Amino acid sequence: MRNYGDRGLRELTKRFDGVDVRDIVVSSEELNELADSIGQDVRNSIDLIYDYLTSLNKQTMPKDLIIKDCGFSSGILWRPIDRVGIYVPGGLKAYPSTLLMVAIPAKTAGVSRLYVATPPRKDGGVDPAVAYIACKLGVYKVYRVGGAQIIAAMSYGTESVDKVDKIVGPGNIYVQVAKFLLQGAVSIDGVAGPTELVVIADENANPDQVCVEMEAQAEHGLTSIIALISTSDTFLNLVENCLSGSQNTFFLIKVSSVDDAITLVNDLAPEHLSLHVRDPYKLVGMVRNVGAISLGRTPSAIIDYLGPNHVLPTNGSARFRGGLSVYDFVKTVMIADGVPSKELLRAVRILARYEGFTYHSRSVEIAYGVT
Amino acid sequence: MRNYGDRGLRELTKRFDGVDVRDIVVSSEELNELADSIGQDVRNSIDLIYDYLTSLNKQTMPKDLIIKDCGFSSGILWRPIDRVGIYVPGGLKAYPSTLLMVAIPAKTAGVSRLYVATPPRKDGGVDPAVAYIACKLGVYKVYRVGGAQIIAAMSYGTESVDKVDKIVGPGNIYVQVAKFLLQGAVSIDGVAGPTELVVIADENANPDQVCVEMEAQAEHGLTSIIALISTSDTFLNLVENCLSGSQNTFFLIKVSSVDDAITLVNDLAPEHLSLHVRDPYKLVGMVRNVGAISLGRTPSAIIDYLGPNHVLPTNGSARFRGGLSVYDFVKTVMIADGVPSKELLRAVRILARYEGFTYHSRSVEIAYGVT
Repeated sequence: MRNYGDRGLRELTKRFDGVDVRDIVVSSEELNELADSIGQDVRNSIDLIYDYLTSLNKQTMPKDLIIKDCGFSSGILWRPIDRVGIYVPGGLKAYPSTLLMVAIPAKTAGVSRLYVATPPRKDGGVDPAVAYIACKLGVYKVYRVGGAQIIAAMSYGTESVDKVDKIVGPGNIYVQVAKFLLQGAVSIDGVAGPTELVVIADENANPDQVCVEMEAQAEHGLTSIIALISTSDTFLNLVENCLSGSQNTFFLIKVSSVDDAITLVNDLAPEHLSLHVRDPYKLVGMVRNVGAISLGRTPSAIIDYLGPNHVLPTNGSARFRGGLSVYDFVKTVMIADGVPSKELLRAVRILARYEGFTYHSRSVEIAYGVT
Repeated sequence: MRNYGDRGLRELTKRFDGVDVRDIVVSSEELNELADSIGQDVRNSIDLIYDYLTSLNKQTMPKDLIIKDCGFSSGILWRPIDRVGIYVPGGLKAYPSTLLMVAIPAKTAGVSRLYVATPPRKDGGVDPAVAYIACKLGVYKVYRVGGAQIIAAMSYGTESVDKVDKIVGPGNIYVQVAKFLLQGAVSIDGVAGPTELVVIADENANPDQVCVEMEAQAEHGLTSIIALISTSDTFLNLVENCLSGSQNTFFLIKVSSVDDAITLVNDLAPEHLSLHVRDPYKLVGMVRNVGAISLGRTPSAIIDYLGPNHVLPTNGSARFRGGLSVYDFVKTVMIADGVPSKELLRAVRILARYEGFTYHSRSVEIAYGVT
């Protein structure tokens, strides 16, 4: 991409998507036209979810913290990332909800330039609902190019594509591998694998609800990993019968206690956990490694559309990473100002000299006139 | 490392450090003995800085946030990472301050098992101050092995070395490259390059203070990148004369306005920024991309010992990443519970069907009994 620029983007899009792309950037006229073509129902639904998610994300924004202590100030400022590229999967299907989930925390965090990249449809356009949301967000540029090629382009820049600071969002395995390999040239949110759901259910759960919740996450594809853990053989059998028509593989696991189920979940660190048990909040405190928890009759599909976010850690990465939030679009700036206490200054000088950093110690002595 | 285990660790440590390591894990007896050997002054200094940093970090801890809205709860829980490996550079020199800077936010965040890896000294031991801090922290295991080999060992596990969820801390280029390459098997804080400092000074600044501050960061090695940006030729000349004895290369840059200096800083995104100007707080608001800011006469060496942290982004990564904080040791868990409003439920069903996710929509309909 560094060598071939826009020409490379066009050639690869022709080869992989079978689409001739003239203008890589979708013009604002075309974007508005596409946006105008969506139905009133879809538009209203997007507006409602947009407002809901914006309000939710605003409440999670961290505040600058400066701690003053006897003339010395020390703290953390939060600053937004300047330029963020959002990958929205597409082509045959469309995922406006993904654009909402990624862009709203980014916009709330104060990112100054949002870019959206999405594969072209066969007619060369982009999805109208995605176009509508991009207009609503004031996205700086929309690229009608998908795949590994646009990840490379946003990492290095081309004639039409601006280099960004961070690339975020789901996508197929080529997109994810490109993100993984280009870390270093660009920051990424993480590598997104197939959907994962673990349901823990006791004998009080509703088998039809559990069954359709599992089928819903199976809808993401045949590679989805979906498991039901239960203390009840009867319940496992009921759900097994209900699922028998599906093409997906489901894992049905019998455990002797709900505690064992939680231990298993913390080891697996699945993307979604759904708790269909009598007292789910008792379990929430024991859960450490999952992307998202839905409780009681709330199905995990609610998290897919109302969040807090549906871009969640997969493949065990919930051990060390959470779902997307405003925190993915801000960073800390440390700050120090003023005169530390005499005791602290002495401690700094002693430790600096212990480490052999004479000039560190001297710079403190000269700045504060201490000896 | 996956194939050679402890034997590989011993062989590589013999080859690169010239030390025969029998017990990879430093026993608690040896650790306590080493800890007891440090002077009272160093011990008191560590205790004081330890308490100061702990108090600072506690105040930055995020709180769980659950937003209740008409029977629907949605929010973010924060959970600590289970197992964290801390790399503390060493061998010839010792960096107890690095252990403080990495371990205190980790411990404050609630990490259950902290591991410390540090290269062995020629006598096979580890630095006494590092041992003292490790005891104080209740570190789970201390490894007397450094280099790329211990990064690989903590990523995959060996007979003596436990697999961890995240590896954090500075180190030489081999350690950093190992961290970079092992991402995926393990989470990392980022890749740490040579120290960087940009000083912005106007004609009111004290040239001796600026000079010794630049010399202090030069102490990290000949690869340190240190620049002075000033609107005053006279000031640049004064500092140039003062620095003339140093072996390091310093960049002295004349700009026509302080605004130009800030633009340059945001483009460079340096690790440290030191503001020696009349009204530094006026500039703080304009600074977006730096790891840490020290103001007025506060030298950047203060940040190295009193923080908030000295593990800071280098090589331009301040564009998208901040210095180490409790946020590096916690992760979000999204949570949803209850019944969203009728309007939101309708919006979810419409958007799910627009995206072709029939079962997502059905799971919502069955869970809430809506049609």
